[in-house]
Amino acid sequence: MDIERRVQELLDRQAIADVIHAYCFHFDQNEPEHVAELFTAEATVDYGPEAATIVGSDSIAATIATGLERTFAATSHHVSNIQLTFEDDDTARGVTYLYAWHRYVDGSPDGELWGRYHHRFERTATGWKIAELVLTAAGAVDFHRSTMHPIGRR
Amino acid sequence: MDIERRVQELLDRQAIADVIHAYCFHFDQNEPEHVAELFTAEATVDYGPEAATIVGSDSIAATIATGLERTFAATSHHVSNIQLTFEDDDTARGVTYLYAWHRYVDGSPDGELWGRYHHRFERTATGWKIAELVLTAAGAVDFHRSTMHPIGRR
Amino acid sequence: MDIERRVQELLDRQAIADVIHAYCFHFDQNEPEHVAELFTAEATVDYGPEAATIVGSDSIAATIATGLERTFAATSHHVSNIQLTFEDDDTARGVTYLYAWHRYVDGSPDGELWGRYHHRFERTATGWKIAELVLTAAGAVDFHRSTMHPIGRR
Repeated sequence: MDIERRVQELLDRQAIADVIHAYCFHFDQNEPEHVAELFTAEATVDYGPEAATIVGSDSIAATIATGLERTFAATSHHVSNIQLTFEDDDTARGVTYLYAWHRYVDGSPDGELWGRYHHRFERTATGWKIAELVLTAAGAVDFHRSTMHPIGRR
Repeated sequence: MDIERRVQELLDRQAIADVIHAYCFHFDQNEPEHVAELFTAEATVDYGPEAATIVGSDSIAATIATGLERTFAATSHHVSNIQLTFEDDDTARGVTYLYAWHRYVDGSPDGELWGRYHHRFERTATGWKIAELVLTAAGAVDFHRSTMHPIGRR
Repeated sequence: MDIERRVQELLDRQAIADVIHAYCFHFDQNEPEHVAELFTAEATVDYGPEAATIVGSDSIAATIATGLERTFAATSHHVSNIQLTFEDDDTARGVTYLYAWHRYVDGSPDGELWGRYHHRFERTATGWKIAELVLTAAGAVDFHRSTMHPIGRR
């Protein structure tokens, strides 16, 4: 066994999971500037067909900040089923399940989303960052968005 | 520390978690043939007292395919709390928590299940496979099945 | 790479996750004495502003036993987003997301909680134990408690 290589992969998996968890944590704490720090400078974020793809960590912070302030009174993003594939030593792709609960500023019924994060991660000089994020949905109830990218169920 | 042995166990844990996640993923994508590939040829699956125990990966594919086509319009199987115990180097038992959401073809209210997967895993020539699967339920709401194996709460 | 140290940290992370999962498992199985065994003798547990902080594993068992018997007919504690930071080799702090479902003895509507466990863990002669536990909530629906510690969303 190439021990060092296998341990490095386990450490990378842990570091990438920490990035995913930090995204959820800072989103739910309403800290859009810390969410944005998890992305590469040129990262793209596609939350769905209704919204234009966001490009760059600065735009990410501004876009998320608006939603966090105007739309949500509280959110909770529970991720699981993290499935990672390394394309090379410094790039990985992942599919992560999301169960998200949302309470709205306007008093609408709480929204629930059963989704997937499709990520591309890159190792940078300051650690693993998100280079691409696409959100898809298996389904939703009372969610504030009427259309979502589908998960592609057969 | 016997480094190689400890690293091997960590890698095995990761590989087994990947099998559990692949089960959920292919189920939710309506890919019963890929679900079945995760089981050993002689595997047994017990989804509950209403249904006969399924034996063998071929039967698993056929049984799941029927449900996926006729019953579910969409599903989302979120697993967590993966608790593994190795019986020997090539066999492990696990209890995994399941929060599953189901949308029905017939328009019934969405069903939710708070369950447990009880697994036995075997290392095979083609990687870790599921040799046994028993589903139990802590509870359910609007679920399409009226009886489930209980979790055995005291 | 200091392989041995890195592997030890990965093993410690696994062991601590197992403690969190054991807490959920024994709680949901109504085994308060096994929940209490996961805590240090002097551990403190703060479930919220309505209840006094519980001190010591014996008090923890007694307090949990009362709730498990009188309040809950069934519970399911799904944890994810486990974020650990090691303060030194033998102490770690963690924030873990909780999605908990509760069915009540008195027939009240099922309660749901989207919370966080804030833990301090200590390595002891008998393995990692919980030395502190504080529960906070992002939100809840039909929960049996009217006030919770907030997550501190900005």
